Amino acid sequence: MSILVVGSVALDSVETPFGKIDDAIGGSGTFFSASASHLSKVNLVGVVGRDYPLHKLEPLRARGVDLSGLVQADGESFRWRGRYRHDLNSAETIETRLGVFSQFRPRIPEQFRESPYVFLGNIDPRLQLDVLDQVNRPRLVACDTMNFWIESRRNELVALLERVDILLLNDAEARQLTGEYNLVRAARWILGRGPKHVIIKKGEHGAYMFSPHSVFFAPAYPLEEVFDPTGAGDSFAGGFVGYLARTGRTDEAAMRRAVVYGSTMGSFAVERFSIDRLMEIHRVDIARRLEEFRRLVAFEEELEA
Amino acid sequence: MSILVVGSVALDSVETPFGKIDDAIGGSGTFFSASASHLSKVNLVGVVGRDYPLHKLEPLRARGVDLSGLVQADGESFRWRGRYRHDLNSAETIETRLGVFSQFRPRIPEQFRESPYVFLGNIDPRLQLDVLDQVNRPRLVACDTMNFWIESRRNELVALLERVDILLLNDAEARQLTGEYNLVRAARWILGRGPKHVIIKKGEHGAYMFSPHSVFFAPAYPLEEVFDPTGAGDSFAGGFVGYLARTGRTDEAAMRRAVVYGSTMGSFAVERFSIDRLMEIHRVDIARRLEEFRRLVAFEEELEA
Repeated sequence: MSILVVGSVALDSVETPFGKIDDAIGGSGTFFSASASHLSKVNLVGVVGRDYPLHKLEPLRARGVDLSGLVQADGESFRWRGRYRHDLNSAETIETRLGVFSQFRPRIPEQFRESPYVFLGNIDPRLQLDVLDQVNRPRLVACDTMNFWIESRRNELVALLERVDILLLNDAEARQLTGEYNLVRAARWILGRGPKHVIIKKGEHGAYMFSPHSVFFAPAYPLEEVFDPTGAGDSFAGGFVGYLARTGRTDEAAMRRAVVYGSTMGSFAVERFSIDRLMEIHRVDIARRLEEFRRLVAFEEELEA
Repeated sequence: MSILVVGSVALDSVETPFGKIDDAIGGSGTFFSASASHLSKVNLVGVVGRDYPLHKLEPLRARGVDLSGLVQADGESFRWRGRYRHDLNSAETIETRLGVFSQFRPRIPEQFRESPYVFLGNIDPRLQLDVLDQVNRPRLVACDTMNFWIESRRNELVALLERVDILLLNDAEARQLTGEYNLVRAARWILGRGPKHVIIKKGEHGAYMFSPHSVFFAPAYPLEEVFDPTGAGDSFAGGFVGYLARTGRTDEAAMRRAVVYGSTMGSFAVERFSIDRLMEIHRVDIARRLEEFRRLVAFEEELEA
């Protein structure tokens, strides 16, 4: 089943201890699409400027990502410049230039409005609400956010939660949103405001999925080289929603497997700059890493054979 | 099978966001013994001063911990005073008074020298080596250390590694010892110097166990209230070695289950001050939490029934 994703389509300039790159394709919509396209059909809605190298998105189109909702507007594309030190868990933003993204008002094309799965990338909660007003009763809505919106659009964000099935955010954001330092309490706060599941991502320390009666944990894959963490969270979301859309399931077992798919896709994303690694992997690579995840946490006698 | 543990027996004064306590019984030997005593017979070697409230160790003796290697020497007991802020992952040491511990020269009583399992608590690596010279070919030697020894006794510590089967340390210590920021590389460095397994503990973020051909990860149990993290690492070690001693196994499946026993015992230790919680739990509590650990990471279809 198809997924509608609304998010940024940007140009990233990144410096890590292992290299640097300028104006690589990035953004939440881009990473999500690159990741989810391995599992499901994806409909992308976003905006770029006249300067955007659209031909670099061709690999996405070739993987079945429908780009007909990607508007090219007068002005410059959204650019982000950041740096990671050895602690790859946190980026230092050097410069953000919103460009045409500052005027982004997502209009969902007619042919996308029946998409049964919706992922609201990290944009203004008012726009996320506006997207939900344009779509026709999706089967599942997942949503990301960030510290900037928690601070500046708190009321809108809390209102949005009532209409979201799954909130994805990182540990610092969960603490900021809820005022609870303890993540179990933070999750309960969020679950009390609408979402049936909340996924709290801890970067290299893995991710929790909380629901009212269950908690699941998936570690991050212990890579020897994390090359560039940019886009890991959106790639996680792409694997997560992608798996649910592919299977059409929403039971607890499927949700848990979806988290592992998310971790798997996130672990690939960080192995190269931009979406490069996500564009070169195949089904067999994904299957192999899923098996490695299984072995990573297995301690049942029967799994050790 | 019985375990010989050599470590500190101290008096801890601790302040957390949830309360404070003075001169509670603590120390690596104490926490290890309290934890491991649920799984195996324990022989404790350590030193206390004339001021030590020995009657407070009676619950340990009642649980089968042999205290005949605990020497009472002239002088004051080892005292540690520390504080935890909301980030319970790191203690702030306010005061350390070594007292009689500064003159500690462990003498292993004759009746302990055949102990098949040995745990070298966090003491001077020269003393850890000295302990190994006094025991008769143990079946398994596990060892802890800390930043102070990595800095001041580096050569002795590296020499010790050749005689140790399993090294347990936290992520910061692993990075400091090896000069590698990446934990996969740090583990490989350590495995190249003797140990067949290395366990890298990440506090609330769980623990990795690396061996030459395998990596295992166990999350920390997501507690809603972490009351006092003091002793979590030694309680982890007690559960880990305790399980191995109880089963007599050293195969990969048993090692993995031992890590989960370690996480389980660590999760109990932090629920109260001192060894209070470890002294009140029963087999059924341990079994229940092990089952919760299983559910926490389960994502196989067959485990979801």
